[in-house]
Amino acid sequence: MKTKILSMLRKQETYVSGQEMCKELGVSRTAVWKCMNQLKEEGYTIEAISNKGYRLVESPDTLTSYEILSRLEKSMFEDVLFFEKIDSTNNKAKELGNQLDRRQLIIVADAQTAGRGRRGRTWQSPKGTDIFMSFKLHPAIAPQHASRITLVAALAVVSAIETVTGLEAKIKWPNDIIVNGHKVCGILTEMSSEPDFIHHVVVGIGINVNTETFPEEIANIATSLYHESKQTVNRATLLVEVVAEFERFYEQFLKTEDLSMLVDEYNGYLVHKGKEIRVISGREETIGMTQGIDHEGSLLVMMEDGVTRPVISGEVSIRGISSYV
Amino acid sequence: MKTKILSMLRKQETYVSGQEMCKELGVSRTAVWKCMNQLKEEGYTIEAISNKGYRLVESPDTLTSYEILSRLEKSMFEDVLFFEKIDSTNNKAKELGNQLDRRQLIIVADAQTAGRGRRGRTWQSPKGTDIFMSFKLHPAIAPQHASRITLVAALAVVSAIETVTGLEAKIKWPNDIIVNGHKVCGILTEMSSEPDFIHHVVVGIGINVNTETFPEEIANIATSLYHESKQTVNRATLLVEVVAEFERFYEQFLKTEDLSMLVDEYNGYLVHKGKEIRVISGREETIGMTQGIDHEGSLLVMMEDGVTRPVISGEVSIRGISSYV
Repeated sequence: MKTKILSMLRKQETYVSGQEMCKELGVSRTAVWKCMNQLKEEGYTIEAISNKGYRLVESPDTLTSYEILSRLEKSMFEDVLFFEKIDSTNNKAKELGNQLDRRQLIIVADAQTAGRGRRGRTWQSPKGTDIFMSFKLHPAIAPQHASRITLVAALAVVSAIETVTGLEAKIKWPNDIIVNGHKVCGILTEMSSEPDFIHHVVVGIGINVNTETFPEEIANIATSLYHESKQTVNRATLLVEVVAEFERFYEQFLKTEDLSMLVDEYNGYLVHKGKEIRVISGREETIGMTQGIDHEGSLLVMMEDGVTRPVISGEVSIRGISSYV
Repeated sequence: MKTKILSMLRKQETYVSGQEMCKELGVSRTAVWKCMNQLKEEGYTIEAISNKGYRLVESPDTLTSYEILSRLEKSMFEDVLFFEKIDSTNNKAKELGNQLDRRQLIIVADAQTAGRGRRGRTWQSPKGTDIFMSFKLHPAIAPQHASRITLVAALAVVSAIETVTGLEAKIKWPNDIIVNGHKVCGILTEMSSEPDFIHHVVVGIGINVNTETFPEEIANIATSLYHESKQTVNRATLLVEVVAEFERFYEQFLKTEDLSMLVDEYNGYLVHKGKEIRVISGREETIGMTQGIDHEGSLLVMMEDGVTRPVISGEVSIRGISSYV
């Protein structure tokens, strides 16, 4: 019911009458009144004027499922599951995936106790300041194309950050988001598959939104949107924008199972496009000039011998010459 | 202790003295005697002659971890977990994989309550007659190369069946084993991965060993080794042979991450090599002539236009012209 009430309040610029709400929701005025009080207790500022009705003045910085669902118009996701605290949203999504639940879901947490980055690295996940969410997806595509979804998600995040904060955000291929040379978001894609069939793809997105301080070991490389913009960002606003952008780009991706429709947009955000980078493959290191990604998501690098070669994510890591990116 | 006692008995052609056992195991004669009695109760025929010692005359048809471990010499697998009954050995292996336990294990069951084939199809798993096992592997290879392990497993099974039963077994690319035109084994490979990192690969192997009757819906396509050879096959003997062959082929696979060292052997077993097949991709159907697999595990098919093309598992299914295979 909270989702529906918040949706109605958000749809109207002006007041929504209590009567209208009762009719739409099929409940009593007392029920509506109780729900309003609960929302107020949770930090929503709702103005109530007799003979006019209710108006949503301000929302708290919360990521509950009703806060998010009431902001999402139409969505490919069937539900949003919110957890105050969880080990890791990716773990929860994978667990649900293993139960053969094939609904596409968004898992969100206010804090993680065992947030993970790639290859089991820790992702710091303090309470109440950042976004930790996972998309549980069931694409009917070839498993070997699934890692491209990481790039789709990166594109969604960078675009949403720009829209919501006005900051200039960049992508460090394949899947980190950089603002002013520091990492603001990481994406961890995990898949469970058979050779010719995807059980599920889980895309975990961690964004440093309003973080004020970082642990010493990452203080030099990490930043938050708050740090860079000096303004607090409403997490639900940003989260919903990421979801909307992801759905838009993902739909285009699914048409071709590749990035041909997204290459230009992605390359426009590429942090080291046209710059010199080190390509590190095992113990070998080569220097090259990035040209941008191709439709398969590989990074095209012009090597020292003048030949441009596609570099596949996972086979190499890359590093900028001048800074860490 | 059962593993060690059975190992000792198996190593010796003649009798093993009780004293020797006590010394080797560091336990009392009573402890050895108790263990012998337990093994006898489980169906082992152990001859005991005073002043000579013990001799293993016959083993029951059982798949307990000590029965298998005592037959395995040196192995890449750290342990064998046996279950009288389990939902699915692949599920158990995946569950252990998700707990970040990176030991390579063999999971074996005497019966499965929810045996699975590809894409969630049912795999009939009656008690006491067949082999249901899963390998939990943690290869340090590119995730996109992992599906080749299915072919490695198929090669191991077909080779083990020939060695143990003398039957002529064939591979239906990529991963079914066929005896006299009927399916005797299915392999289900599942993977949990990040774009550039494998969490685990689970290779499930189901072999119809001593099955006497099949449910109506698969009676026309399935068979068992017992059916084809008219002889009961000791399951542990076959299982251990599959494991040994798998380790041998898997080691070769890991050297190159492809099948270049195994192509000839695999193609020697290919059921429709040089035969006409239908290649079915979505709604399209083409007729072609199989040439064998290439080093990547793709099936090379000479199409009607005379051009040989690699057919990738998962993108198409193939069907023989004359029979179902």
